[in-house]
Amino acid sequence: MQMCHGRKMKAGLSFLTSTFQSGNLNPCYCNFLSSSTNPSLSLPSTLRSITFFGNPPALRNRSNYNNCNTKQIHAASTIMASAYKPEQARVPPAVPMATSPVTKFKIGLCQLLVTADKERNIAHARKAIEEAAGKGAQLVLLPEIWNSPYSNDSFPVYAEDIDAGGDASPSTAMLSEVARTLKITLVGGSIPERCGDKLYNTCCVFGADGKLKAKHRKIHLFDIDIPGKITFIESKTLTAGETPTVVDTDVGRIAIGICYDIRFQELAVLYASRGANLICYPGAFNMTTGPLHWELLQRTRAMDNQLYVATCSPARDPGAGYIAWGHSTLVGPFGEVLATTEHDEAIVVAEIDYSAIELRRTSLPLEKQRRGDLYQLVDVQRLNSQSTK
Amino acid sequence: MQMCHGRKMKAGLSFLTSTFQSGNLNPCYCNFLSSSTNPSLSLPSTLRSITFFGNPPALRNRSNYNNCNTKQIHAASTIMASAYKPEQARVPPAVPMATSPVTKFKIGLCQLLVTADKERNIAHARKAIEEAAGKGAQLVLLPEIWNSPYSNDSFPVYAEDIDAGGDASPSTAMLSEVARTLKITLVGGSIPERCGDKLYNTCCVFGADGKLKAKHRKIHLFDIDIPGKITFIESKTLTAGETPTVVDTDVGRIAIGICYDIRFQELAVLYASRGANLICYPGAFNMTTGPLHWELLQRTRAMDNQLYVATCSPARDPGAGYIAWGHSTLVGPFGEVLATTEHDEAIVVAEIDYSAIELRRTSLPLEKQRRGDLYQLVDVQRLNSQSTK
Repeated sequence: MQMCHGRKMKAGLSFLTSTFQSGNLNPCYCNFLSSSTNPSLSLPSTLRSITFFGNPPALRNRSNYNNCNTKQIHAASTIMASAYKPEQARVPPAVPMATSPVTKFKIGLCQLLVTADKERNIAHARKAIEEAAGKGAQLVLLPEIWNSPYSNDSFPVYAEDIDAGGDASPSTAMLSEVARTLKITLVGGSIPERCGDKLYNTCCVFGADGKLKAKHRKIHLFDIDIPGKITFIESKTLTAGETPTVVDTDVGRIAIGICYDIRFQELAVLYASRGANLICYPGAFNMTTGPLHWELLQRTRAMDNQLYVATCSPARDPGAGYIAWGHSTLVGPFGEVLATTEHDEAIVVAEIDYSAIELRRTSLPLEKQRRGDLYQLVDVQRLNSQSTK
Repeated sequence: MQMCHGRKMKAGLSFLTSTFQSGNLNPCYCNFLSSSTNPSLSLPSTLRSITFFGNPPALRNRSNYNNCNTKQIHAASTIMASAYKPEQARVPPAVPMATSPVTKFKIGLCQLLVTADKERNIAHARKAIEEAAGKGAQLVLLPEIWNSPYSNDSFPVYAEDIDAGGDASPSTAMLSEVARTLKITLVGGSIPERCGDKLYNTCCVFGADGKLKAKHRKIHLFDIDIPGKITFIESKTLTAGETPTVVDTDVGRIAIGICYDIRFQELAVLYASRGANLICYPGAFNMTTGPLHWELLQRTRAMDNQLYVATCSPARDPGAGYIAWGHSTLVGPFGEVLATTEHDEAIVVAEIDYSAIELRRTSLPLEKQRRGDLYQLVDVQRLNSQSTK
């Protein structure tokens, strides 16, 4: 009997466990759970159909498998896995990975030097985007806060009213125009956005027709305090975004996070469960957290969720108030660094091949092996959205 | 207005958002949500009290903060964070990190060469444990499957009936005796366990009094198939464990995972939310997944959850059927490698200082910054346990 470590197992669960152990259970354990008349099975209503302890009887006789071939083993493994409700490890259940209009394409990461001159920043970014597209990039990614210095003093000054557009947002007007002209998908890093009396750190995604396809407002604000190293309180000026962002583009289903968003593993899990092929994180890690965590976080999110991760940082300016780490990177679905750079200005162009995702997910079928009977990640907005359909 | 990316926002949520934007909301938004009479607010009952869109009115006037000092900023940040329900990112809410009887102590990782000779393996492990304790280790960790070759053919042959004890389990009898004699906490790697007609991959934790304090049965079985590299189907012979394992010891609250368990980020999250100071993962990664993912996974679990992670592998035997990667490691709560080794036999002794956890969590207050309004990790067994109290 597994130890309970001081937590009292309730009668209903003990009953289930002992029943499985004695082998007397109705083989149709799912029906058993859902149609139980045992009053001790007082699970919360939301969990009544999703809690399962013990192994299904069909799998108890291990000797059945001793001489089976690989196909049979895989089948057995699949049956066993299903007993642990892997699909319930995501609430609502994960949707299949999106089918992208293209499987292979090039991405360009524009690691730009950002100055205090906004007009120059806009012209400079346009030039870099053109260069990346000239090298074959069908998707171009810009850094976090590429039109303004990264500081709470600058955000209100450089902020643009993206929804008003036109002259009220010269940065996104340029992005729209260059995306349309070059016929590329553009994940436009981020800029400070003004909306009413609030400011956001906002990433705009433009389609090859120049239309704004999505707008991600940084969800997790960068409020950290490492004494003697780095202290920054974004919430001094910025408001956090209200929703995760996944958008279908000509180059697949792209999810967006901005910088500090990458620290929250749940967001990446949620994006994977929404079928994303690629998560783009514009980000400006610094000289303390950069060497410690920048590559580690990117590789981790890609490996754990078995999808592509692309990041884009500003280039390093040792004279800036906030010194960026650089190291814009593309990571594949096995957590492998496919392309990266140091801290100087650079345009990294590298190939993405979504078939690698399927390959990795077949080799390491993590999604089928999760234990929905033990843990579940709830995507609150998707759940609410489904409950109203 | 944030784009909805093809998903229809329901009327109730739009209403909330626009109400917040126009600033007309009752400042007590929690009461508003829970006592709403708006029929369009048809959230599922489980989410009615936990869903929050938009920012609380008290935070809308950013100009309040422009001239505030650091303390005020922190206070503002805390208020803002609380609006996003960080405590609801874990269901049930996370418990505080456990207070350990000792803050600083030494851990010993015994990277043992494992042979086909079980008696020799037991005697060899005892010697290594004694050596680690001799170097001051108050906690000793052994590798995954240290008394048997790592193969489906061997598991049934080397398996022991741990619950029967005594002669039926010479491996754990030794562990108990040596823990008592040396007065150390012993996380006894893992051995194949026979229980009725089932086999498990099981880790036993012994206290300094020699008593069995916890038994963790590997929850996620190692079923992978990387063609031409590594194929292993543990579920051919083994049954998966039914419960996560957290145990209070003389050296803190220790959580246990075995090898493949480390790939599932949810388990580590769940352990952190149960107040663990340290997660121990006995593990035998191989020559394919070892170089790719072993260190990455350990650093990630420690960094994301801001706690200590210790791993212990068998030493590499190039002649074995399954060749272990080695590289037993201790990682600190910032994701930093504190001590490690190559692939030969080694006893790694290093210091753990739990005060580093508090330090890191203060600098990067991730727990207070999570978005319980957007994602929630449910610990199913802990939730069930609470619902019956």
